[in-house]
Amino acid sequence: MVELYKGTLPEKKFKHFIKHDYNYLIASIKNFSILASRANSTHNTQLLTEIAQEEATTEFAGYKVYLKELNIPIESVTKSKPTFMETSYTSFLHSTSLLKSFEEGITAVLPCYWTYSEIAKSHADNLKNNPNKLYRDWASLYLEQDYLQVVDKIKGIVDGLDTDFPYKKLRTVFIQASKYEYLFWKAAYNMESWPL
Amino acid sequence: MVELYKGTLPEKKFKHFIKHDYNYLIASIKNFSILASRANSTHNTQLLTEIAQEEATTEFAGYKVYLKELNIPIESVTKSKPTFMETSYTSFLHSTSLLKSFEEGITAVLPCYWTYSEIAKSHADNLKNNPNKLYRDWASLYLEQDYLQVVDKIKGIVDGLDTDFPYKKLRTVFIQASKYEYLFWKAAYNMESWPL
Amino acid sequence: MVELYKGTLPEKKFKHFIKHDYNYLIASIKNFSILASRANSTHNTQLLTEIAQEEATTEFAGYKVYLKELNIPIESVTKSKPTFMETSYTSFLHSTSLLKSFEEGITAVLPCYWTYSEIAKSHADNLKNNPNKLYRDWASLYLEQDYLQVVDKIKGIVDGLDTDFPYKKLRTVFIQASKYEYLFWKAAYNMESWPL
Amino acid sequence: MVELYKGTLPEKKFKHFIKHDYNYLIASIKNFSILASRANSTHNTQLLTEIAQEEATTEFAGYKVYLKELNIPIESVTKSKPTFMETSYTSFLHSTSLLKSFEEGITAVLPCYWTYSEIAKSHADNLKNNPNKLYRDWASLYLEQDYLQVVDKIKGIVDGLDTDFPYKKLRTVFIQASKYEYLFWKAAYNMESWPL
Repeated sequence: MVELYKGTLPEKKFKHFIKHDYNYLIASIKNFSILASRANSTHNTQLLTEIAQEEATTEFAGYKVYLKELNIPIESVTKSKPTFMETSYTSFLHSTSLLKSFEEGITAVLPCYWTYSEIAKSHADNLKNNPNKLYRDWASLYLEQDYLQVVDKIKGIVDGLDTDFPYKKLRTVFIQASKYEYLFWKAAYNMESWPL
Repeated sequence: MVELYKGTLPEKKFKHFIKHDYNYLIASIKNFSILASRANSTHNTQLLTEIAQEEATTEFAGYKVYLKELNIPIESVTKSKPTFMETSYTSFLHSTSLLKSFEEGITAVLPCYWTYSEIAKSHADNLKNNPNKLYRDWASLYLEQDYLQVVDKIKGIVDGLDTDFPYKKLRTVFIQASKYEYLFWKAAYNMESWPL
Repeated sequence: MVELYKGTLPEKKFKHFIKHDYNYLIASIKNFSILASRANSTHNTQLLTEIAQEEATTEFAGYKVYLKELNIPIESVTKSKPTFMETSYTSFLHSTSLLKSFEEGITAVLPCYWTYSEIAKSHADNLKNNPNKLYRDWASLYLEQDYLQVVDKIKGIVDGLDTDFPYKKLRTVFIQASKYEYLFWKAAYNMESWPL
Repeated sequence: MVELYKGTLPEKKFKHFIKHDYNYLIASIKNFSILASRANSTHNTQLLTEIAQEEATTEFAGYKVYLKELNIPIESVTKSKPTFMETSYTSFLHSTSLLKSFEEGITAVLPCYWTYSEIAKSHADNLKNNPNKLYRDWASLYLEQDYLQVVDKIKGIVDGLDTDFPYKKLRTVFIQASKYEYLFWKAAYNMESWPL
């Protein structure tokens, strides 16, 4: 991550990451859609359809630009086999949203979106001297108002959950999702596909 | 319907309809979200999140305006008990989208959206001499470009379904959904709640 | 119902009922399976798989016997179009179990199973003088230990729900399901298919 | 695996495996229940409720016996945190069964059940000289008629899938599930919890 913000990350690692993060993005859009259908209020259904659509348009368009700048044909991405970690993390999100409560489902998405904005903020200084335009473009997305509003919406929904809901359950999925988030990054850095 | 377009519909019937159609709209947004999560291509996931969000913002905002003009407090709508026909129709849509194939799910939403645009077109002349501004406003929504694009998107997804998919199954849900659509209108016209 | 227990019910009405109740049974088995997958404890998952399997074997076999005695070919049942009330009621059960909480899902199945056993008990005297063997056979099923155990299991799960869960939500689905249960019987008695 | 069948496997490794396989079993019962609710025929719904119930009673009871013989209190198992591989594998099964087609869902469960019976058959000779009664008991379960019937039912459902269904999709989930199955064993052998 520090390498990415400083610009010292080998480009082939970034390419590997972008390809799989693009597929993660699609799974994430589906996940927000599931949550929209199961939300605990009309207001939250509206917020979640807005997030799903924001992800499906703005963030999606951004990824298409990076892929083009990296000379990665879009077909090679959509046809790329999902990695082990990508499959595991997105399956975890989908099955949590579908089988468990809405409360646990929305909490499980928080780590990904929250950490991106926090990491972007805390490494903003590194970014200024980043010689790689592509890395600067990519990272600055997570400092923009559009993205921060998505994070604020998610945090707002979680903060507004019924205080009667067993906190322990939320804590469990939050920790699991945080671990998946870290492992997804690590697997991308190591350019892992499947451990067999 | 003709009475609505001509402007001779008693306003209390329109009020009853608008209240329950508002709740139908919320169920419909959830339904598009379910379909977005189960879509047969990334492109269709994107289209369906766009539709869900369009419904959740533009069409939703329109309804809030009508409710205000009709002096119906929003709380009285959200707290109104769903009618028998509303519960039956929206349950049918949700269970089709969740338990059956994506193909059947998207076909089930077609009758509602398609008939609204066709009815609006064929009654456009009646609308010109409609003395009730509210009815004119409401009906003209379904002649606007935004709405017609939603209908075109849905029709495009259905037209693009794999031709190998058993046509008979699609025909069955299309007919069922068309019947529910008609019965929903009829129940609203008769101001029905529950048949017991 | 009284006519059925006394034996004065016209057999064509019973035939109509049995055909659609057979399809209701299949939908009910699916519903218990959904609930098993979403249950709030391992013990309840076990109980619900037992109920689903009991319904799918014993009760199913019983229906096949009735259909044979009534000279109704099984194909004519499985190929019969689901009626309006059957579609509405089973869609309501499935969408409640899939989109809402487990608590609401299990509460929605209670009216059907509970009323069957209560009706069977309160009409047991009528049954003794019932001249129609088929009606006696059918009705006595709901006085048997196997069936009463299923009802007790469902009641046990509902009674064991977390007392923190908002009672109002449970009350709402209980009333809705009770109305559907009554309307299903009424539609069968009137041999209704679709209201258009 | 060979060590388990020969009896040279350290018992602490077996204990670790049994604990997490017990939780896998619960997730597997839920998965069969989801599939029962989405099956492509009434016959398959029946078969899948039978499998779910067989797993929830016979196989479950077997595990309780092993846990007792191994002096593992049942509470320590149900309260044990799911491991990374257990969470990933069961999430993959659940999200496949819920979001994808029934055909892909049933194919994803095949590797686990099929390999257990094949491994049991090919290592049956090793088992005879296995000095560890517990290992013999555990392994012989997968040579029994009850278990082999479950495997045959699953294979029968997969063999009966519509030949029009794109084979490539089934192949993809079959390979993914097979890899998860292997990785689950490997993680259990290495007594892994979470890789961070």
